[in-house]
Amino acid sequence: MRPDADIRAQALARQQQLTKPPGSLGALEALAVRLAELQRTPTPSAQRVWISVFAADHGVAAEGVSAFPQAVTGEMVRNFASGGAAISVLARSLGANLDVVNLGTVNDPGPVAGVHRAIIAPSTDNFCEGPAMSQAQLQAALAAGAASVRAALDAGAQVFIGGEMGIANTTSAAALACALLQRAPAELAGAGTGLDAAGIAHKVAVIERALALHAGAGDDWERLRRLGGFEIAALAGAYVAAAQAGLPVLVDGFIASVAALTALRLNPDCRDWLLYAHRSHERGHAAVLDALQAQPLLDLQLRLGEASGAAVAVPLLRLACDLHNAMATFAQAGVSAGARA
Amino acid sequence: MRPDADIRAQALARQQQLTKPPGSLGALEALAVRLAELQRTPTPSAQRVWISVFAADHGVAAEGVSAFPQAVTGEMVRNFASGGAAISVLARSLGANLDVVNLGTVNDPGPVAGVHRAIIAPSTDNFCEGPAMSQAQLQAALAAGAASVRAALDAGAQVFIGGEMGIANTTSAAALACALLQRAPAELAGAGTGLDAAGIAHKVAVIERALALHAGAGDDWERLRRLGGFEIAALAGAYVAAAQAGLPVLVDGFIASVAALTALRLNPDCRDWLLYAHRSHERGHAAVLDALQAQPLLDLQLRLGEASGAAVAVPLLRLACDLHNAMATFAQAGVSAGARA
Repeated sequence: MRPDADIRAQALARQQQLTKPPGSLGALEALAVRLAELQRTPTPSAQRVWISVFAADHGVAAEGVSAFPQAVTGEMVRNFASGGAAISVLARSLGANLDVVNLGTVNDPGPVAGVHRAIIAPSTDNFCEGPAMSQAQLQAALAAGAASVRAALDAGAQVFIGGEMGIANTTSAAALACALLQRAPAELAGAGTGLDAAGIAHKVAVIERALALHAGAGDDWERLRRLGGFEIAALAGAYVAAAQAGLPVLVDGFIASVAALTALRLNPDCRDWLLYAHRSHERGHAAVLDALQAQPLLDLQLRLGEASGAAVAVPLLRLACDLHNAMATFAQAGVSAGARA
Repeated sequence: MRPDADIRAQALARQQQLTKPPGSLGALEALAVRLAELQRTPTPSAQRVWISVFAADHGVAAEGVSAFPQAVTGEMVRNFASGGAAISVLARSLGANLDVVNLGTVNDPGPVAGVHRAIIAPSTDNFCEGPAMSQAQLQAALAAGAASVRAALDAGAQVFIGGEMGIANTTSAAALACALLQRAPAELAGAGTGLDAAGIAHKVAVIERALALHAGAGDDWERLRRLGGFEIAALAGAYVAAAQAGLPVLVDGFIASVAALTALRLNPDCRDWLLYAHRSHERGHAAVLDALQAQPLLDLQLRLGEASGAAVAVPLLRLACDLHNAMATFAQAGVSAGARA
């Protein structure tokens, strides 16, 4: 889908007529105009928000690259569903739909109410020893993301948010970003859930080994298959599907941004549909945001993932829409327009 | 009032136990802890928000320092009350109380439903020719601010927000900030509602004349009287009163921050009670924020005033509180804590 240029022009004109100095609502004006052209309506809205959190384990966790044990991925799946995780609280506060998708966890919580099981394997393979995924596994992960977008559309969602959970997934995301952007691991590998300097140095060395092993990956599809994770591929698949369906996406932090970069490489037409929620505290995010030419809304030193940063930005979308839709024009309010503005 | 150190320690400890890597919610963790210690409760809340918008005209408007005609101040008072202004929309969306206070407008809208009349004079005097306010006028403005805080407390407000409207008030705020911080007008005078480069140069020259005229102001009280405005003094009075009553304040943009700086000069004990909502696009704000050692939550290139930037930050306070109050601990959720965190 393409944004609607007529609606865009109409929304820009309306912003000039509202009772405020032109441009004085800054990024909120741009946000309302953007949502209007994407939603193809003069009255944009972010009331109905769909959040899919994809959980999956990573073979590279065996290299000791995380501050947390691998069992946490499965434990957190249960926590998402029972309402105790950050994204659970945020979704509840926002009245957003929370879709928890288990793509494969070593410590499998089994069937849990409120968790969609789309198990691909207990985890990816360790990409220090071979490709993380088979072709079939990659296809399944991409399809799981697309399926969540279909469910969001069926529910009437106006904005799609994707999140992730998976011990060691900043290692996978950093490795993939290094391969996509031709950057050195030391530039993009960060503390993740809380590594110290020695832990980060080890993580860098692990990624360097993986990049050497997979230097022959011929294209971005292959880079995703060899270095990605189920949840990263699912996010990329979701972003492509959302763009194809004309559903605006609010991208979360570092890992989601690497998935967005991957989606853009697989299908450059995604670009218009991706809005960026926040600048994460994770080291590699700045470089990935630069590559995406993204101007995120928030900078709150968040580094949790789970779609939490995107959820925190939802009220900005809502307020931007409310201002656009409900403010009076100079003519309606009988307010004098600026003489020199 | 002083923040509660025991509650602070308790809130910090709780943040370490919630199911997330320690520190991974960044500024939202700090915000919840701050509100807890200020509200003296382990379960902080920003549900009940009180917004007072103080409107007043400025004699210095006669120098041609604004892109909008002076009649707009009175016109906007009516617009605030009838629901068409940005802050009206935001207050409605947030379920916040909106208190519109008319301290004196040249184009007086008269009695308007939803507007509290606390008229001091049709405007301040032109501070290029003499002091902006008499001693009695300054006292009345400070008292009007304090009265709004009492009303907020009576309504059970958990957070106080002050806003302003007044054609030419960035000129007054810049002049006052220059006098308080010993800075040159060219550093702090900006575009306001939309001046071009020539307009800003003229504004700088006007402020330079005023600073020369009032160089003999002996203390900060006198600087406020000579260079301030009714709404700026009301904000300063409100901030001091809120701090004395132990009510947290969310400070808006450039003009509100200059009022906060003034309040701190009049009563340094205010400091703990002032939270900063956003970094405005107005030129002088960065220097004032630096002087306040403020770390604002948002940077959305807003420059409207009216408390709009503070209102936009309210959901961050609410979500920070929800996360603090409602997330599960590692023990509650049966999630493994980090081994190396």
